[in-house]
Amino acid sequence: MGAGSPAQPQARRMKGPEELEIIAFERGHFTSYSACGIPYWVGGDVPGRDELIARTPQEHRERSIDLRVRTEVTELDVAGQRVRARDLSDGTESWTGFDKLIVATGARPVRPPLPGIDAPGVHGVQTLDDGQALLDTLAATEGGRAVVVGAGYIGVEMAEALLKRGYEVTVVHRDEQPMSTLDPDMGRLVHAAMDGMGITTVGSTAVSKILTGEDGRVRAVATEDAEYPADVVVLGIGVQPETALAEAAGLPLGAYGGLLTDLSMRVRGHENIWAGGDCVEVLDLVSGTTRHIALGTHANKHGQIIGANVGGGYATFPGVVGTAVSKVCELEIARTGLREKDAHRAGLQFVTATIESTNSAGYYPGAALMTVKMLAERRTGRLLGAQIVGREGAAKRVDIAAVALTAGMTVERMTTLDLGYAPPFSPVWDPVLVAARKATAAVRKAGV
Amino acid sequence: MGAGSPAQPQARRMKGPEELEIIAFERGHFTSYSACGIPYWVGGDVPGRDELIARTPQEHRERSIDLRVRTEVTELDVAGQRVRARDLSDGTESWTGFDKLIVATGARPVRPPLPGIDAPGVHGVQTLDDGQALLDTLAATEGGRAVVVGAGYIGVEMAEALLKRGYEVTVVHRDEQPMSTLDPDMGRLVHAAMDGMGITTVGSTAVSKILTGEDGRVRAVATEDAEYPADVVVLGIGVQPETALAEAAGLPLGAYGGLLTDLSMRVRGHENIWAGGDCVEVLDLVSGTTRHIALGTHANKHGQIIGANVGGGYATFPGVVGTAVSKVCELEIARTGLREKDAHRAGLQFVTATIESTNSAGYYPGAALMTVKMLAERRTGRLLGAQIVGREGAAKRVDIAAVALTAGMTVERMTTLDLGYAPPFSPVWDPVLVAARKATAAVRKAGV
Repeated sequence: MGAGSPAQPQARRMKGPEELEIIAFERGHFTSYSACGIPYWVGGDVPGRDELIARTPQEHRERSIDLRVRTEVTELDVAGQRVRARDLSDGTESWTGFDKLIVATGARPVRPPLPGIDAPGVHGVQTLDDGQALLDTLAATEGGRAVVVGAGYIGVEMAEALLKRGYEVTVVHRDEQPMSTLDPDMGRLVHAAMDGMGITTVGSTAVSKILTGEDGRVRAVATEDAEYPADVVVLGIGVQPETALAEAAGLPLGAYGGLLTDLSMRVRGHENIWAGGDCVEVLDLVSGTTRHIALGTHANKHGQIIGANVGGGYATFPGVVGTAVSKVCELEIARTGLREKDAHRAGLQFVTATIESTNSAGYYPGAALMTVKMLAERRTGRLLGAQIVGREGAAKRVDIAAVALTAGMTVERMTTLDLGYAPPFSPVWDPVLVAARKATAAVRKAGV
Repeated sequence: MGAGSPAQPQARRMKGPEELEIIAFERGHFTSYSACGIPYWVGGDVPGRDELIARTPQEHRERSIDLRVRTEVTELDVAGQRVRARDLSDGTESWTGFDKLIVATGARPVRPPLPGIDAPGVHGVQTLDDGQALLDTLAATEGGRAVVVGAGYIGVEMAEALLKRGYEVTVVHRDEQPMSTLDPDMGRLVHAAMDGMGITTVGSTAVSKILTGEDGRVRAVATEDAEYPADVVVLGIGVQPETALAEAAGLPLGAYGGLLTDLSMRVRGHENIWAGGDCVEVLDLVSGTTRHIALGTHANKHGQIIGANVGGGYATFPGVVGTAVSKVCELEIARTGLREKDAHRAGLQFVTATIESTNSAGYYPGAALMTVKMLAERRTGRLLGAQIVGREGAAKRVDIAAVALTAGMTVERMTTLDLGYAPPFSPVWDPVLVAARKATAAVRKAGV
């Protein structure tokens, strides 16, 4: 779900149709759905596609929004305050003028130009159409071998989904460890847990081509050294901001190709153009630089903020701290703030502390191990980042660190945070507090 | 587990036995156990008493701590820097001098002087001995009728434990709704859920006496209007600071009878006496007043801080925001900060917002409802408190609000917090964010 979808009703709440005419262009059939839910639909946890749709085109129209689906914008004329759009059903093009423009073009999956990448049986999982196509392939190859390319969030979630579908799953990825959004020492825990689930991971490896059989369908994924037989291949390599139109129109892009905005989500240097969601870069409050993070929760916030501002209200997006949570089967994975390499890159010196504790009191039935790593700034002791790998109750604990990061707290202040304690929910020292204590000791030990 | 138990090893880590002699007096047999775990032991989740013991007397002694169990301190001579203690095995008394004194006398359960309160079959659940006595009674009356007096944390946890033991459970309590640590509108949700579990709750009712049978054992609990048959009665009315010795010695007590300390946990006005755990009052950072909160997680922090300071280091306890979590069967209950009546009492004007959302994306299997209530200060929009009632994943979300309270965040700032999002863990707007949005709108609407 991008920024465009929530922006429209929010703007409509601020101003009625007599004051504000809203026209929305959408290339596909659907306007407002949870792409993050696709792995759970593919894995069978979510029964059908319609469950993932937040608002139908009809619901948008009921709010007097002139929604044009299957209509692709092909040019932005910033100076002329108009956009050119093509009706995909009949190919006709026309210009539409605007007083205010919202760019919410989202992101496109990275799809390296490898031999065989377009072969039948090779699937992305970015859109509902992608999800349906993958499900159709799975229905035809039930219980075979699957290769997932990439071991980020989408990669590991798709590995779980395919495992649930009865596939033998191999994940081939570039970095030393899966989940490279974590430091490698924490990624190693994910690796070991995936091994335990029967998911084969092959790291430090680049895919060189997709091999096809005589029928033209995929039959294997090839790297420099090996071939991994595959009845189905899922690409989970990540996404890039979809900003070709914006770039052609001369709008400002950042180092990652995303649109650059001010705090009100207005495109820098443009009074009447806003942008949000997966097509923009966001300010990272910890490193002080902009990053590209494609995540529905940010896009939704952007949409609300843009809708309020376009509607004549006032709201800002202060930035992110880089929180992300995920799971592979029973394993929960979370991170916020900076990894070691991010901190180096930002010019920050730091200490680290890693602890192991349990999600509930050790004596409570089902108490499961959790590993928490913290980065704290040298000398000041300011929290810089936290990573958590564990079982039930592990991932959402990262929110404690996310709020502390937002507030600029030191790890020493964190040691006395008043967190919820009762035996079913936490040991008497919450794992986050234990990590903060160890990080505090590390800061002291490092001295000035 | 009180403050004394962690203070000793922490002080020992700072200074060896050649520098610091540590003598510890303990009235009972056990020194370091989780009283919070007793309901789970009684309910059968925790197999045995020994699981609840964190450190045995032997473990303390191995750290060169002169631990004297079954030895009750009967007098503090502050001016003379000595304590008088009685050996409970032979009744002998003796004085022991000190350079530094730590008072960690804990709390005692409220036990109103009702007729019949000491009858066999009436149990408190404060100590391991209490827990064992209750289990012995249950073994003799398996599957009968139980009445729990009090509907706070201990009360509802014991209701669950007795339900698990096959008892028909009635909870009789004083306030309009159970869990009076919540506002009544949130307590009502707990009430309804307990009804659904088959636990009868009788509110706005005071117990007038405990009725006994011809054998002298409890047979019912009587209020002004009714009698509730009972084979066993559990008292969960709360606790009071155990400060009789401290009061007799002239140490300063607060409005709730707890010792008053400075930020280093030193008793106010006394250079060489520290106090911590359930016998002290703590600073509430939201209301600016001191409160009495008996909770193992605070006591443990106090112990660490006192141990560091007594050992020549430096640490402080900044105060609490009043976070507490609990559960009754599958229902999770959490609160932090101020209730409406606390805010009134503190002279704060506020708005409230209550929302209903789900613990995971609505389309994710097992998504369950969660209600979040927030209090925000009028005009400034500063968060004043949050309460949550829901199912799995509800309670520990209160930590987000606890950290935000600690940082003095406004509810508007909270609307853009970067919290962990993925379909198994949260809707795209975390319920806490949804509540913050509604509270922000309420602050705006209330105007100046």
